[in-house]
Amino acid sequence: MIDTLVNRIKELNAPICVGLDPVPDFVPGFIKEKAFGSHGLTKKAVAEAFFEFNKGIIDAVYDIVPSVKPQIAMYEEFGIEGLDAYIRTCEYAKEKGLVVIGDVKRGDIGSTSRAYANAHIGKALIKSGERVEEVSAFDADFATVNPYMGSDGIKEFLRCCKEYDKGIFVLVKTSNPSSGEFQDVLVDGTPVYELVADKVNEWGSELIGESGYSRVGAVVGATYPEIGKKLRLIMPKTLFLVPGYGAQGATGKDLKEYFNDDGLGAVINSSRGIIAAYKKEEYAGFSEEGFADAARQATVDMIKDLQDNCIGR
Amino acid sequence: MIDTLVNRIKELNAPICVGLDPVPDFVPGFIKEKAFGSHGLTKKAVAEAFFEFNKGIIDAVYDIVPSVKPQIAMYEEFGIEGLDAYIRTCEYAKEKGLVVIGDVKRGDIGSTSRAYANAHIGKALIKSGERVEEVSAFDADFATVNPYMGSDGIKEFLRCCKEYDKGIFVLVKTSNPSSGEFQDVLVDGTPVYELVADKVNEWGSELIGESGYSRVGAVVGATYPEIGKKLRLIMPKTLFLVPGYGAQGATGKDLKEYFNDDGLGAVINSSRGIIAAYKKEEYAGFSEEGFADAARQATVDMIKDLQDNCIGR
Repeated sequence: MIDTLVNRIKELNAPICVGLDPVPDFVPGFIKEKAFGSHGLTKKAVAEAFFEFNKGIIDAVYDIVPSVKPQIAMYEEFGIEGLDAYIRTCEYAKEKGLVVIGDVKRGDIGSTSRAYANAHIGKALIKSGERVEEVSAFDADFATVNPYMGSDGIKEFLRCCKEYDKGIFVLVKTSNPSSGEFQDVLVDGTPVYELVADKVNEWGSELIGESGYSRVGAVVGATYPEIGKKLRLIMPKTLFLVPGYGAQGATGKDLKEYFNDDGLGAVINSSRGIIAAYKKEEYAGFSEEGFADAARQATVDMIKDLQDNCIGR
Repeated sequence: MIDTLVNRIKELNAPICVGLDPVPDFVPGFIKEKAFGSHGLTKKAVAEAFFEFNKGIIDAVYDIVPSVKPQIAMYEEFGIEGLDAYIRTCEYAKEKGLVVIGDVKRGDIGSTSRAYANAHIGKALIKSGERVEEVSAFDADFATVNPYMGSDGIKEFLRCCKEYDKGIFVLVKTSNPSSGEFQDVLVDGTPVYELVADKVNEWGSELIGESGYSRVGAVVGATYPEIGKKLRLIMPKTLFLVPGYGAQGATGKDLKEYFNDDGLGAVINSSRGIIAAYKKEEYAGFSEEGFADAARQATVDMIKDLQDNCIGR
C-alpha cells in the first residue's frame, strides 16, 4: 500500500491528503436541514449529513489527490451512528481509488494492541469448531499510531502491515503548541522525538517497499520546519504525514525541507482549509451550494503552492 | 464522580476494578454457540456473546466491587456491532451502581480532542436554528487519556471533567515491558514519567474533590513497584489506576506502596484474572457454566489479597 500511495503521489504530482474531519459547523445548511428533516436532531442525522458532505468532497477531488484522511474522533463524537458514517466514508473513498489514512491515533499493549490493529488495518477471526470467518471492522489502508507505550504498542500494527499490505504513521512530532512538553525534552542532548524517530527507522527497516519508502511512516507537524528538516535527514526512507498546513498556519514555503531531493517523502494534510474552503473569504464566490467546487479549487491552489515551493513541477 | 468512586472503595473496602476485556476465547462455548446459532459467524454474534458474558460477570460482582473498566479495543475489533456491546455494557454496569472507567486511551489536539472528550465523558451539541439537542455517545464516568501530545490533548477532557462531573486517568507509567523506551528516559536526571506526573498534578490542581482526590488520575502499572512508590509520593492527591495485577504478574505484596497511609489512592485492575478465572486450574471446579461464580470467587480472593497486603482490613 505504501507503493500505491507513493506511485499515486508521483502520477498526480500532488503530495496531498485531504482531511475528512467534518464538524456540524462545516456542513452546509442545506445538507444538515435535509438530514434533520428525515431524522430529527439526532446522531443519525449528523452522521447522514457527514456522509453526504464527505461524498461531495470526495467526488470533487478524487481525480487530483492520492489520499484522504478521515479523523475518526469527529465521527466517534456521534457514537455508533457517527462511526457508521466513518466506515461508509472509508469505503466510498476506496471505491474512488483513494488511499485511506485512518487518523485514529490508537496505542495500547498486548492483546489490546492486537485488537486495535485488527480493527483498523487488519482482520479479526471468528471461530466455531472447524469453521473460521475473517471479518474486518474499519479497514483503512493506513492508521496513525501513538508511540508512548513503546514497541509493545507497535508490533501488532507491524504484523498487520505485513499480513495485509497496510501501513502506519507513528506520531513523532505533532503540530500543536504544547507538543514540546514531552516530545522536545532532551535526553543527553537528544529530544524525545528523535528517539521516537530512531524507533520508527527500526520498526520500518524490514518493511521497505519497492518505492524505497517504508510501510512505517511518521507524523511530523508542519508548524516546526526546523524540526521537520532534521527529521527528514534522520528518517530518509520514511514517508511523513504532515498536519498543520493552512488553518494551523504553515504554507508551502515552510515545507520544502520535509521532502527528499526526489520531490517525494511527504504527504501534506489539509482539513479545514479544503473541506470548509467555501466559508473563507477567498472562496466565498462559490457559496454554500458550491462547497465541493470550493474544496476542489482550494485543493488545486494547495497543489500549486506545493509544486511551486516544495517539489518542483 | 471521583468522590463517588472513592466513597464506594471505602464502603466496600475493595480498591478494585474489574476489567471487562472480552475476547472470543474467554467467552464460554455455550454463550458463543447460542449467538452463532442466531447470527452466524458474524460481528453481531460476537458482540451479543460479549454482552451476555459481561452481564454474567457484572451480575456476579456488582455488590462487591466499586468499578469496572471495559477496554474499548476489544469491542472496536468487531466494528459498529462490537461498539454497540461496549455501550450496552457501560449502561448495564451503571444501572447496577458501578463506576465505569472507559479504557479508551484517546489523545489528540484541538477540535479533535474536543470530539474525543465529548464522545467519551461529555456531550455533543446538535443545533438547528433555535433548537439545540445534547447527545451523548459512549458516556463513561472516567476515560483513560494518552499524554504524548501535551496539555493540548488534555484540556478538553478537563473541561468535560468540570462540566459533567467526570474524571480521567492519564497514562504516566504503563505496565508493559517496553514502557521504558520513552517513559523512562532521563531528562536532566528526571524520567519522562515524572514530568508527566508533574503535569498530572498541575492539570488536576483545580479539580480536587471532597474526598481529597483529584478528578485527574494516573495510570501507573503494577509491574514496576519501585516506580509506583516514587510516583505515590509525587502525586499524593492522585488516584492511581493500576493495571498489571494477576495475569501480568503483580500481586498484593507488590502494591502496598501504591496506596497512601489512609489505605486509599489506588484502584487495582484485574481483567483476565477475573473474567477468565474459570479457565484457571485454581477455579476449574466451577466449570464453564459457572464462569460468573468463578469470577466472583477470583474477585473475593483478590480483595482479600489487597486487604491483607496493602490496605489493612
